[in-house]
Amino acid sequence: MADATVMEKIVSLCKRRGFVYPASEIYGGLNGFWDYGPLGVLLKNNIRDWWWRNMVECPPIGPDGHPIDMVGIDTAIIQNPKTWVASGHAGGFSDPMVDDKETKQRFRADHLWGAWCIKVHDVVHDDPWQEVDVTAILNLDAYAPNLTIVASGVGEAAESFITELCKTARLEPLEGQVEGPFNPVGGTAAIIVRNKKEKMRKEVWGIKNIPTAVLNDRPQSIPSPFTQKSGALTQPRRFNLMFETFVGALKDESSKVYLRPETAQGIFLNFKNIVDTTRVRVPFGVAQIGKSFRNEVTPRNFIFRSREFEQMEMEWFCHPDEAAKWYDFWKQQRMDWWYSLGVTKENLRFRDHAADELSHYSRMTVDIEYKYPFTAPDFGELEGIAHRGEFDLTQHSKHSGQKLDYFDQELQLKLKEQGASPEQIKAKSRYIPNVIEPASGLTRAVLVLLCESYRQEKGRQGTEELLSLLPRFAPIKLGIFPLVNKDGMPEIAQKLYLDLRTRFTCEYDPKQSIGKRYARMDEIGTPFCATIDGQTVQDQTVTIRHRDSMNQERIAIDKVGHFIAAQIAGE
Amino acid sequence: MADATVMEKIVSLCKRRGFVYPASEIYGGLNGFWDYGPLGVLLKNNIRDWWWRNMVECPPIGPDGHPIDMVGIDTAIIQNPKTWVASGHAGGFSDPMVDDKETKQRFRADHLWGAWCIKVHDVVHDDPWQEVDVTAILNLDAYAPNLTIVASGVGEAAESFITELCKTARLEPLEGQVEGPFNPVGGTAAIIVRNKKEKMRKEVWGIKNIPTAVLNDRPQSIPSPFTQKSGALTQPRRFNLMFETFVGALKDESSKVYLRPETAQGIFLNFKNIVDTTRVRVPFGVAQIGKSFRNEVTPRNFIFRSREFEQMEMEWFCHPDEAAKWYDFWKQQRMDWWYSLGVTKENLRFRDHAADELSHYSRMTVDIEYKYPFTAPDFGELEGIAHRGEFDLTQHSKHSGQKLDYFDQELQLKLKEQGASPEQIKAKSRYIPNVIEPASGLTRAVLVLLCESYRQEKGRQGTEELLSLLPRFAPIKLGIFPLVNKDGMPEIAQKLYLDLRTRFTCEYDPKQSIGKRYARMDEIGTPFCATIDGQTVQDQTVTIRHRDSMNQERIAIDKVGHFIAAQIAGE
Repeated sequence: MADATVMEKIVSLCKRRGFVYPASEIYGGLNGFWDYGPLGVLLKNNIRDWWWRNMVECPPIGPDGHPIDMVGIDTAIIQNPKTWVASGHAGGFSDPMVDDKETKQRFRADHLWGAWCIKVHDVVHDDPWQEVDVTAILNLDAYAPNLTIVASGVGEAAESFITELCKTARLEPLEGQVEGPFNPVGGTAAIIVRNKKEKMRKEVWGIKNIPTAVLNDRPQSIPSPFTQKSGALTQPRRFNLMFETFVGALKDESSKVYLRPETAQGIFLNFKNIVDTTRVRVPFGVAQIGKSFRNEVTPRNFIFRSREFEQMEMEWFCHPDEAAKWYDFWKQQRMDWWYSLGVTKENLRFRDHAADELSHYSRMTVDIEYKYPFTAPDFGELEGIAHRGEFDLTQHSKHSGQKLDYFDQELQLKLKEQGASPEQIKAKSRYIPNVIEPASGLTRAVLVLLCESYRQEKGRQGTEELLSLLPRFAPIKLGIFPLVNKDGMPEIAQKLYLDLRTRFTCEYDPKQSIGKRYARMDEIGTPFCATIDGQTVQDQTVTIRHRDSMNQERIAIDKVGHFIAAQIAGE
Repeated sequence: MADATVMEKIVSLCKRRGFVYPASEIYGGLNGFWDYGPLGVLLKNNIRDWWWRNMVECPPIGPDGHPIDMVGIDTAIIQNPKTWVASGHAGGFSDPMVDDKETKQRFRADHLWGAWCIKVHDVVHDDPWQEVDVTAILNLDAYAPNLTIVASGVGEAAESFITELCKTARLEPLEGQVEGPFNPVGGTAAIIVRNKKEKMRKEVWGIKNIPTAVLNDRPQSIPSPFTQKSGALTQPRRFNLMFETFVGALKDESSKVYLRPETAQGIFLNFKNIVDTTRVRVPFGVAQIGKSFRNEVTPRNFIFRSREFEQMEMEWFCHPDEAAKWYDFWKQQRMDWWYSLGVTKENLRFRDHAADELSHYSRMTVDIEYKYPFTAPDFGELEGIAHRGEFDLTQHSKHSGQKLDYFDQELQLKLKEQGASPEQIKAKSRYIPNVIEPASGLTRAVLVLLCESYRQEKGRQGTEELLSLLPRFAPIKLGIFPLVNKDGMPEIAQKLYLDLRTRFTCEYDPKQSIGKRYARMDEIGTPFCATIDGQTVQDQTVTIRHRDSMNQERIAIDKVGHFIAAQIAGE
């Protein structure tokens, strides 16, 4: 529960200081949607620009000692719907859903397992032990090895019941609140069956790991969690996670299109365009940053899983024989990139996907995981690096009738030099490139930097909270304060502000006590503050105050710009 | 027709060089959607960053000599649907549509006017004069003063008919192709009635200017343009331009949401959040860049009017008594900004909206218009600066039940000093701010820079086309070429590339003849190329070649970075 509290404090600070607001808050919000406030958008842009710089403008040096080839792109959110048939999203990108035939309420089938083992319970009035099938819980592993049971109680009676039950049925208590259709309030308890592998680790399509037989056989025998009636539930049906809309004047199947659930497909659609119109040659990468949409049934954990989010994806096209080499290359590059954000090594790890856990398109996938406050001590997904083989280009070629293979002139030349026969050369120098895809979330990166930089330190002046962001990512690099709002100080401070704001984000603030101004800058992660005081008027020096150490030093006012610029550059 | 050809050449260059591709091209595209290729995304980002810098990071100096207050924001595309009820988009944001009852085809009622005056004509086989009601055309002004008639022909017979008709009926010939459901091919002619004020100048809701009586009375008497039958058409019905989708597991009215048709409303929704959580005080601005979506019935003119596009909008909140002053301020600021992109004064102009042309929310609006190749010699809409009064905050306050007024502490203090009574102070220092909104399109700005910088010059080496972009906006600032790919030149060129790519976008290219490499850089707007040749190996100088003048000069290799940086900064 200690970690849940940290998360609550981060969410609260984000709201209070203008990083992240719930979308449409004045209308009661909209579940799964968030707005990035004045500081949030600056933080997000800083991460965005750093990824773009490291991917597109200054891509890494390749294994051969030369910079690799990379271009950027920005494709439409709405594409021809055939795109998603080819990619597999129109068919498989879905969650199993169950309806209550009477109340018409709908919920995820895997959430139903809570109702199957034990109904949500009013433990104040009933005896919950009458309803618990402890033997069923103990035997669950035998026929549903991917499922695990967690329990949770709200209210004193419920909590003591859960504590006792966890002992008897060998359950782990659930950290945080119960999700799903149960929403226990008051003296209630719930037991939820969960997919072990999905727990913060898998994309929603990981749902396939729930044994289909179990899912399909059970609902009829499970009482509805709403009416408690048996036989009230439908068979699970797949619910597609893509948002759909209609283009043009008519509203029917012929005009149905989707909001993209990932940016990657926009890159595959343009593979041929890029080969035809730019100078890049295989191996090369195409990078894209943009919004994606998934109609998540249960958006959760602040901006970790939202319905509208921003992705940073790159598709690396290479010769099939070299795919394994590039997979290793990008795996390391991407981890190093997260280190460059100031994320500590202890909070990051690799996790290889097991064979039965791979997505339909993937030959190998490794996740970079982060220890979020809401997963700790466990880790949760942050970025996936997937070996997609030739799946995507083959699919789009098949569905569009366009040739999406690649003629490798350099390989042709090399084979000719090696004395290969014309038939061999012809056969080998035309191929469908393999793809290595490092895919991460920009909005998730914002969350990681917020979690990583958030500190509570007792004994600080004015606030006990601060964001210890690297200067490069801090929304505001420098606070500029006249100590008092008179005696020539505001004029000097404003001049400094006007001089420096063209080089990096500064904030001029003449109001409140200096302690309160420092405290506010600590909470928004500003690494330095320059204070203009009586001495400045005399000798043209200012106080530079360091956020983390709270140390102060005096430097010449005309050296401030250079000092801050060097700090941002990490010199 | 000369200008149409220029536009076709620009579109072709955009495709050929990787600026703009039709979205989903391998699947036959999707009307109204575009992808920004490797160079297009760089050009777009450069404009985006320049707007953001001039709005958020370094906002203008205000009339009082101090920098104005401005913050950025990034709100969700999908908001609570009540947003659009309050804003008026759910009700009024629509086009009048007519259906053919038999064929079920649907088209815009205002396009139907072509069919009313004269049907699309096969002038090769029929005598078109039999069908022309010249008197009706001449009298049109009497009962539909906002409508104008234009005519167009394809094929020799049609063209000579149209030329003659234009003389007789005092019509202006239509520049470019006929739009709408007619698509004349072969020997056909069409006469289209258009809303005078809409012509490239108004948002789609300008449709309200078509006299409703005319629209409502006529369709029954107009033969269907598809079957030529009378009485085949429905009354015009409003077709909402917002894309709709559904959030959550259910698909019904309760879960219906919209893709935003403008970014502005996300700002109004957060007015209170921003006042509560940042230091800005009225007057201040909130700026946002992001995608918007409009289900245009007839997307057209390349990326000028597309269904998915990117906006740059700013809402300036001020005291009602100062709104007129700030309206003038922003009018001038925004025009100056377009000049700063390198757009020539002759191609830009202001156009004030007439009283009967104003949108429902606006008290005053001025458009900044640009002379596009497809509107020339006329101008078309580029940016609107609207005085929205207190419309938006009042509407959102009414619909949400939240107070969205502002307590002006500074005004309170001032009134107290002036000796106002407590009642006067209380009444005057709490108010609903007025809003001035400069709203422009990022994707439209890309189009303007492409049109503005496109040149055809005979006698250039390798190509007759170039993009004469200011260095600041050029996707690639410097091409770095070894004259030949040997003799130590590639190594020097690569080192220069690695040194400079952290400061600005460079491209290293060792292939093809130097003339072809220069020509390619001219076509993509690269202002400078540095060539490493035999002399470089001797004396460490390189040739700098200027795009526009094609002049060459030699400078020391270690001065190249400084030279280019100064050019980008405009020094």
